[in-house]
Amino acid sequence: MDAFNALFSTTFEIDRQFGTPYHSRFRDFIADMQRQNYVIGGAMTDVKGDRSLAPHQQADPDLFVHVTRRTAEGVFVTGAKAHQTGCLNSHYLLVVPTLRLTEADRDYAIVGALPVDAEGITYIYGRQSCDTRSMEPGTMDAGNAQFGGQEAMVILDNVFIPNELIFMDGEYDYASMLVERFTCYHRRSYVCKSGVGDVLIGAAATIAEYNGVDKASHIKDKLVEMTFLNETIYSTGIAASHSFQPTASGAYLPDDLLANVCKHHVTKLPYEIGRSVSAGFSWWPGSHAALRSRLSQ
Amino acid sequence: MDAFNALFSTTFEIDRQFGTPYHSRFRDFIADMQRQNYVIGGAMTDVKGDRSLAPHQQADPDLFVHVTRRTAEGVFVTGAKAHQTGCLNSHYLLVVPTLRLTEADRDYAIVGALPVDAEGITYIYGRQSCDTRSMEPGTMDAGNAQFGGQEAMVILDNVFIPNELIFMDGEYDYASMLVERFTCYHRRSYVCKSGVGDVLIGAAATIAEYNGVDKASHIKDKLVEMTFLNETIYSTGIAASHSFQPTASGAYLPDDLLANVCKHHVTKLPYEIGRSVSAGFSWWPGSHAALRSRLSQ
Amino acid sequence: MDAFNALFSTTFEIDRQFGTPYHSRFRDFIADMQRQNYVIGGAMTDVKGDRSLAPHQQADPDLFVHVTRRTAEGVFVTGAKAHQTGCLNSHYLLVVPTLRLTEADRDYAIVGALPVDAEGITYIYGRQSCDTRSMEPGTMDAGNAQFGGQEAMVILDNVFIPNELIFMDGEYDYASMLVERFTCYHRRSYVCKSGVGDVLIGAAATIAEYNGVDKASHIKDKLVEMTFLNETIYSTGIAASHSFQPTASGAYLPDDLLANVCKHHVTKLPYEIGRSVSAGFSWWPGSHAALRSRLSQ
Amino acid sequence: MDAFNALFSTTFEIDRQFGTPYHSRFRDFIADMQRQNYVIGGAMTDVKGDRSLAPHQQADPDLFVHVTRRTAEGVFVTGAKAHQTGCLNSHYLLVVPTLRLTEADRDYAIVGALPVDAEGITYIYGRQSCDTRSMEPGTMDAGNAQFGGQEAMVILDNVFIPNELIFMDGEYDYASMLVERFTCYHRRSYVCKSGVGDVLIGAAATIAEYNGVDKASHIKDKLVEMTFLNETIYSTGIAASHSFQPTASGAYLPDDLLANVCKHHVTKLPYEIGRSVSAGFSWWPGSHAALRSRLSQ
Repeated sequence: MDAFNALFSTTFEIDRQFGTPYHSRFRDFIADMQRQNYVIGGAMTDVKGDRSLAPHQQADPDLFVHVTRRTAEGVFVTGAKAHQTGCLNSHYLLVVPTLRLTEADRDYAIVGALPVDAEGITYIYGRQSCDTRSMEPGTMDAGNAQFGGQEAMVILDNVFIPNELIFMDGEYDYASMLVERFTCYHRRSYVCKSGVGDVLIGAAATIAEYNGVDKASHIKDKLVEMTFLNETIYSTGIAASHSFQPTASGAYLPDDLLANVCKHHVTKLPYEIGRSVSAGFSWWPGSHAALRSRLSQ
Repeated sequence: MDAFNALFSTTFEIDRQFGTPYHSRFRDFIADMQRQNYVIGGAMTDVKGDRSLAPHQQADPDLFVHVTRRTAEGVFVTGAKAHQTGCLNSHYLLVVPTLRLTEADRDYAIVGALPVDAEGITYIYGRQSCDTRSMEPGTMDAGNAQFGGQEAMVILDNVFIPNELIFMDGEYDYASMLVERFTCYHRRSYVCKSGVGDVLIGAAATIAEYNGVDKASHIKDKLVEMTFLNETIYSTGIAASHSFQPTASGAYLPDDLLANVCKHHVTKLPYEIGRSVSAGFSWWPGSHAALRSRLSQ
Repeated sequence: MDAFNALFSTTFEIDRQFGTPYHSRFRDFIADMQRQNYVIGGAMTDVKGDRSLAPHQQADPDLFVHVTRRTAEGVFVTGAKAHQTGCLNSHYLLVVPTLRLTEADRDYAIVGALPVDAEGITYIYGRQSCDTRSMEPGTMDAGNAQFGGQEAMVILDNVFIPNELIFMDGEYDYASMLVERFTCYHRRSYVCKSGVGDVLIGAAATIAEYNGVDKASHIKDKLVEMTFLNETIYSTGIAASHSFQPTASGAYLPDDLLANVCKHHVTKLPYEIGRSVSAGFSWWPGSHAALRSRLSQ
Repeated sequence: MDAFNALFSTTFEIDRQFGTPYHSRFRDFIADMQRQNYVIGGAMTDVKGDRSLAPHQQADPDLFVHVTRRTAEGVFVTGAKAHQTGCLNSHYLLVVPTLRLTEADRDYAIVGALPVDAEGITYIYGRQSCDTRSMEPGTMDAGNAQFGGQEAMVILDNVFIPNELIFMDGEYDYASMLVERFTCYHRRSYVCKSGVGDVLIGAAATIAEYNGVDKASHIKDKLVEMTFLNETIYSTGIAASHSFQPTASGAYLPDDLLANVCKHHVTKLPYEIGRSVSAGFSWWPGSHAALRSRLSQ
């Protein structure tokens, strides 16, 4: 969502300045993906190395994804993208730069689409808390067994991108526009965490009921406070979208400031909500009995 | 705004059930007020007495505004409304109940309009911090000298309301709908405090510039944090309006939950913003010199 | 620590009123434990059932530990103690009531010591996040392999306590004193979490150094804020001990109010500290290289 | 308290290095002040000008207090000290530097005592919120009429300090020690605000009682929260003193880190406490009646 919305409007503006064919190529790519019902993963975060240096200044040139070779048919890229959520159950990756670039970083100003099983890609699967539990006997800890999330480090070793899947190549002065629009959509998209909060608040309310404490004022206060925090996330996301701005391409952008306010709350409030749950709600045999009787109704 | 929006939809629903003429009376009243370019002050908060008792249970029957006498032409009301902001520079007051009522409180279920200089009204003007400063020599502390706000206690001693300005009389079971809609608009309306915040943040940024510390990271961090808090107020207000619901009358209500989230932030965040200003920004002779030179540009 | 300090002073006061032999028995027990260099685990938290009912009112009499049978040599107790930290690597458990008791709960007013392998005890080992990782190949996730913590549910099915290890039996009106003193020591003891915080802050500072961002003002701010929060925990613990009060037995109690302030901070601030770590510090290959070179020095 | 404790130990260490007579002079001065039961005001905060420049680099040399002339009998100083609390009801001022100094700032490295009515001193009395109310008729707003606080800007225009009241003159490398010790005592001393908090919490509890809402759970929660915050200030102050360190002079210093933690809480928590009071407690005629009947008991 973040990657292709940001690319839609940015390619339009690149083409307008330079007469490049990126926007129509990109529309064709998206149309094709939709026709095949494919999932696209946006791959942005480079591994970065020394954060006080630009890509071309790094000791190792591969700390940011860049073009290593050009042919008549396309380009080869090398580098790595860190902790890409859902990359393994996507069909294509959209590789985009991760920060503002200057002329000396021209080879790093590359945007392109790759099938996830392209030659030269290695995935290093990231461990997650409790991840082996889902392989233990029984179903209690199986979680979302068929569609569970994952994160991986994606290493690109001279991977080929054909011309028709290249959507920026060298237009370094548009890297910051792309990054800013990508993050604007992305920060707004964190409003999804209010859905996670809904589930947590509902679970807390249910536990309180099983423990016979749902009428206790301090428990009700905690549920109210959790809801207040959760709806703050929801509101800032909704307000960012409501205060949209049009781009030259006709696509709309959420309000950048409010999208960042939404994200900043998401870095804090889910911790507060989780803390309230663990501080106020517990789960004992008495509750299990009540749960069982309810589940059997 | 809160009072007449809430009354618009509530009178419609009362009439629908009881065949009363309140809604058309109320439309006529509003049209007349608009024609004359009049300001209406909503007067809701009763003085309440013992908050664990209903109006009719109070030791003193006048702790909530109620009907004391009825004639063919209208009703007489007695009671008091506490800390009414702007009542003295309004033209009319709209007296409305302050809480859910039951049958025994029927005489307290009265809504009506009063000219602010009606016979029997006494205003006790509330003191405000630094209010006598505006009367000292010089202009520095004059503030908003011509249109400054004020709050007053409004004592009603057998004040007459003619029939055509009565918009509820005895329909006690609609008091809670009226109160809830009034407060829903009112809590949403607190989004105005983000405008106060804008002024404060701008002043803080200007002081920082005069002190030559506007590039200091801890000062920039404070300005960012203040903006983050202020935009949270703004966002929750906007989201409450965006998530509106229609009423039977055709008027719209903001989302009740989000309007309350907005208000709850307003009970906290302006304090945080004010604290940041006093903690991080100060004002000394050096700054005055800079200010003077800037003002003379 | 909590259990035997609270029992030391409470048994003294029980004996003073009733002429019972609990205090000297308890001193003998502690002396014996120290002679053998034994670890004692305090077992307080009952499983509770319906929290709005007293122990004797529960549908199941075993939801709080109580005496089921008496002989000339001692008593038999039944019930369960929930999530007892470190019970499996203790030598003895000190079973104590978990709340204020009345006369009808007399059989629940039992305090006694049990060897952890007494006949009739069953332990249900509690799962912890990532607990099976320590059994995977490699040493990275082994953690504190030899002395790692654990929590277990302790089920007591007619377990015998000999007379000389009984330190309260039926003096229900002293249960609240025992619980309050136990919790006073316990809440003060949470100051230990500032040690955990020290480790976390040090790790965060080290990661920042490896990423080359330790001079960035927002990173320094985060480290300062984490230290501020962590030292708040430390201070409230120290102040609780500094403001001690003597008991009749000669043992000292921390200040009850300040001990609770310490605990209340511990329910919040470690989350804030942890959140700052995950928000501000990350760990990438570039860092690994720096770490390796540092470790090889 | 801050100034003379910091000077006691710092003068001792200056003398030890340079063989100066400051420490014994200072002891004589303090003994004389105590004999006469005099109040001493510490005057530290210079007006500073451009905060990115050292004293000797400022456009105006008088933005920090400095020596302008020397005679056999003493020195003359010029400059200004900003917002000195209580300076007008002190008998003597102790002028001390406000920041770390270097050799080029040698003339700014001056510490001395001045009678408050010394020739060449001008006080600019600072306005405070509501300060003219105490001059209105009636006693309600008189406040602490005889011993009320005040702040003033102190302008020093070639004020003479005799040799026997000079406690540092040119030892610029001890300025930072003096400032750090001064602020260490000063930040610890902010624990006094927990006394202000006690009064506020007591007032809030009394208002709740008058309004008949002292049993309402949300009111009790607010009082508990206010107490929790207030005792956090108290604890961090107590812990700073408990963790003292001796100085070479034999005087003791609070722990510097914990003293700063105390001060940092004081920049935040009184706002939180005050906010809770205004959010949860109000004061109406009903309460006045209850208050009056109580006051007449």
